[in-house]
Amino acid sequence: MQFKEIVEKLKQGQSGVIDFKIRNNPFIFEAASLEKAKENDISFLDNNSPLNLRDLIKNSKASALLLPANDNYIIEIAKNISIDWIILKEPKIAFAETLEILYPSEIEKEGVHKSAVIGKDVKIGPKVSIGANVFIGDNTEIGAGTIIHAGVVIYKKVIIGDKNIIHANSVIHFGSKLGNECVINANAVIGGEGFGFVPTPNGWKKMPQVGRVTLKNKVEIGSGSTIDRPSVGETIIGEDTKIDNLVQIGHGVITGKGCAMAAQVGIAGGAQIGDGVILAGQVGVSNKVKVGDRVIASSKTGIISNIEADKVVSGFPAIPNKLWLRCSANFKKLPEIAKSIRHLNRRNSR
Amino acid sequence: MQFKEIVEKLKQGQSGVIDFKIRNNPFIFEAASLEKAKENDISFLDNNSPLNLRDLIKNSKASALLLPANDNYIIEIAKNISIDWIILKEPKIAFAETLEILYPSEIEKEGVHKSAVIGKDVKIGPKVSIGANVFIGDNTEIGAGTIIHAGVVIYKKVIIGDKNIIHANSVIHFGSKLGNECVINANAVIGGEGFGFVPTPNGWKKMPQVGRVTLKNKVEIGSGSTIDRPSVGETIIGEDTKIDNLVQIGHGVITGKGCAMAAQVGIAGGAQIGDGVILAGQVGVSNKVKVGDRVIASSKTGIISNIEADKVVSGFPAIPNKLWLRCSANFKKLPEIAKSIRHLNRRNSR
Amino acid sequence: MQFKEIVEKLKQGQSGVIDFKIRNNPFIFEAASLEKAKENDISFLDNNSPLNLRDLIKNSKASALLLPANDNYIIEIAKNISIDWIILKEPKIAFAETLEILYPSEIEKEGVHKSAVIGKDVKIGPKVSIGANVFIGDNTEIGAGTIIHAGVVIYKKVIIGDKNIIHANSVIHFGSKLGNECVINANAVIGGEGFGFVPTPNGWKKMPQVGRVTLKNKVEIGSGSTIDRPSVGETIIGEDTKIDNLVQIGHGVITGKGCAMAAQVGIAGGAQIGDGVILAGQVGVSNKVKVGDRVIASSKTGIISNIEADKVVSGFPAIPNKLWLRCSANFKKLPEIAKSIRHLNRRNSR
Repeated sequence: MQFKEIVEKLKQGQSGVIDFKIRNNPFIFEAASLEKAKENDISFLDNNSPLNLRDLIKNSKASALLLPANDNYIIEIAKNISIDWIILKEPKIAFAETLEILYPSEIEKEGVHKSAVIGKDVKIGPKVSIGANVFIGDNTEIGAGTIIHAGVVIYKKVIIGDKNIIHANSVIHFGSKLGNECVINANAVIGGEGFGFVPTPNGWKKMPQVGRVTLKNKVEIGSGSTIDRPSVGETIIGEDTKIDNLVQIGHGVITGKGCAMAAQVGIAGGAQIGDGVILAGQVGVSNKVKVGDRVIASSKTGIISNIEADKVVSGFPAIPNKLWLRCSANFKKLPEIAKSIRHLNRRNSR
Repeated sequence: MQFKEIVEKLKQGQSGVIDFKIRNNPFIFEAASLEKAKENDISFLDNNSPLNLRDLIKNSKASALLLPANDNYIIEIAKNISIDWIILKEPKIAFAETLEILYPSEIEKEGVHKSAVIGKDVKIGPKVSIGANVFIGDNTEIGAGTIIHAGVVIYKKVIIGDKNIIHANSVIHFGSKLGNECVINANAVIGGEGFGFVPTPNGWKKMPQVGRVTLKNKVEIGSGSTIDRPSVGETIIGEDTKIDNLVQIGHGVITGKGCAMAAQVGIAGGAQIGDGVILAGQVGVSNKVKVGDRVIASSKTGIISNIEADKVVSGFPAIPNKLWLRCSANFKKLPEIAKSIRHLNRRNSR
Repeated sequence: MQFKEIVEKLKQGQSGVIDFKIRNNPFIFEAASLEKAKENDISFLDNNSPLNLRDLIKNSKASALLLPANDNYIIEIAKNISIDWIILKEPKIAFAETLEILYPSEIEKEGVHKSAVIGKDVKIGPKVSIGANVFIGDNTEIGAGTIIHAGVVIYKKVIIGDKNIIHANSVIHFGSKLGNECVINANAVIGGEGFGFVPTPNGWKKMPQVGRVTLKNKVEIGSGSTIDRPSVGETIIGEDTKIDNLVQIGHGVITGKGCAMAAQVGIAGGAQIGDGVILAGQVGVSNKVKVGDRVIASSKTGIISNIEADKVVSGFPAIPNKLWLRCSANFKKLPEIAKSIRHLNRRNSR
């Protein structure tokens, strides 16, 4: 595709084209990072990139660049090198849109593969693609345009909306509900039974888990992640919430809209997560804890009690991020601190 | 089902019915939490619930309640509202039994689905259900009443006892042994090869992992969890031990009876875990460490050396829980402590 | 197999046979640990084992022993008991070789199982074994001698080299490349989409992930682990790097050769890991961080900034291991330290 065509398409997108320069109008075959770009590649620089990254554009072999509007240093360089460029309010969004343009999604064949096993009274909407060796249980519904890849197992009475993508070998348990435009990545498990056992003199008594998991629209679940159903009621993942790989969401957890949870996060049963919450990798949240809207927890944070909205927290147990940074800096000095104390105690006991 | 019928059934259970009141003898359709219950629902309140939860019963729309015997506050309220109730020694166990009554397990069709692939000399007991696209390797044995859901892969020479439930797309490797009444949740991997590599001048030399995994009776393994087999000998999960999702059990680990391990726990190779040990979420146990009977480790604890029986531990490295709570409280004061030290040092050096 | 035959085979191996004693030339049926060994078993003792382990050889019921050359204490005992033994430079490697001799790998049937679904223009090399219910997408290539177990799903345009072993129900996404002699354990996911979302006023904008995952030769990936593909470019796992179970490797991560990563490690997007790096269980590495060659991080370490080559680090944030040990020892004394400070402050304010 020629550079000019990309410019035209981006103008219709969400990235805010401010200015552009067509010099050579090169054919663009690939997108790449600034370091890796070669001729006929397009690359981008994000807003507020550090100087060492910004300097890369001087030597990049890319044939075209997507650049941030707020960066005169960059724009000056761009204007002085023989390259085609676009200046944008949101160059990262422009790069996402460019990837969509250059690399359209694989089109999966419509219809049900002949090796798939479909139960009784299954409703399958139009333009659905069901791959090889898929199993779908009785009374399940699959909405229009949904793609189910090979090896997926869907239990009975599941309701799946429109335009979902369900990757290979993932499992969706009895009674789960998915909205529209969700992505379930490979080997994820939606609606497995919650971990509920009551101690008795004769060992553990299992609490039956007869609730369901509901994923609202535009939810994405990472590879290998597990979202448990509760004993009664629902586990709910709010609209547009994105969950990375190997994340555990316990029974009865309710998350708000637009959250992002990085890999290996674990949220224990009954926790309530607000809107727009961001949990970095390996964060843990204890059961029944409430995490307010827009809370951010840095990696490995352990949240064991309620956190008010808009807080940024770190450490275990979680404390305000800025305080944690200062405490951690002093943790390194503990041997020295202990030594001073011994010295002072000695002096004072004289 | 009418309330009276539930009363009769609970009398035959393990929850200890002490008293009950049939006022309206409502039809009970669903079970729900106190907050969510609506008409024709049954709900419960656990022993020693906090006051804010206990107050919920005043306004609950539930038509019937399971209540704790030791709580006069609650009983007084219950007697004054027009509702049917049962007072029990163990209301949580009663709730579990009520869920079993109201929501009987789905009955899986007996027999082998025609799309399943069964190896040579496989022994299949009576009343077994083998789902779509299951693969079972040569010389494997499946005991009576076991349910194997769609997509499960069982390698050769596996011995599976009676009344096990093996959920979709889980994998059971060569030579593994399962007792009776185990549950293997979706996408779990039982008996994968242990992580054993010996450094040599030419790179890693793989230690063959020719041992096996043995799960005793009533073991439950969570979705996506992995239980590795050792180089020689056995990895053993003791009777009635319950393991949550995304847990890693290394090669040669031996756990006692009646343990509970929450999500994302990791136990390294060769560790020995006693009876009745409880490990909360994201706990790690180092290789070859011994953890005594009834030890409790709170979330994110890192156990890197032996722990005596009956200890409650926290932190990394693990220390007694009560000490850890005090240390953590003081961690927050480290900047202040460091400041005091500087001040005192200055003063003292004068 | 008779002991003498094992001696002959080990002489041709990598373990450095220094001396041996054939007394009874027993038949060796099994290999076992010193504690568990019974008659007709062979066992081993590693270099520099602790005394309590070394004393086990006095009472071991093993019929033959592999012993370390550098340990006169052991050799003296061995010479005085009626047992067959071999003294070796590397007894652990000898044990690995002995396991290979005694327990040859299961031979999988060559050919494509009739229930497997193979796409268009798939190239399958000689001596390949493709198991039941496998799905292979269009234009994928499978090299000679590769074994693909039941239920595996391989998307389109994947290139898989020679002599790989791909265990049951694992998933390999579009465009991934595997070298030779890799092992992908059960339920692992290679090449799933990276976690990339850009915040916009209308919610998360997905960054398309059109890069690929490349595994070099002799890479091993544990059960349930997930290796993500990047938006552009490659995620690369270097030659002979071994990855344990439930490990997350983010999009665009590049690891060197010969690394070992224990279970539940998480490496965030864009991190660069050198050669020979060892990460213990539950370690986290933040995005874009560089970890130098031969760095060792102990369990639960959180690496949030660059680490120079050859460092041994611990804690969160990571600090030198020796410093961390001293800091941790003092962490336990924090309540006492705080008390001393209060006391000293009081005294000084007088």
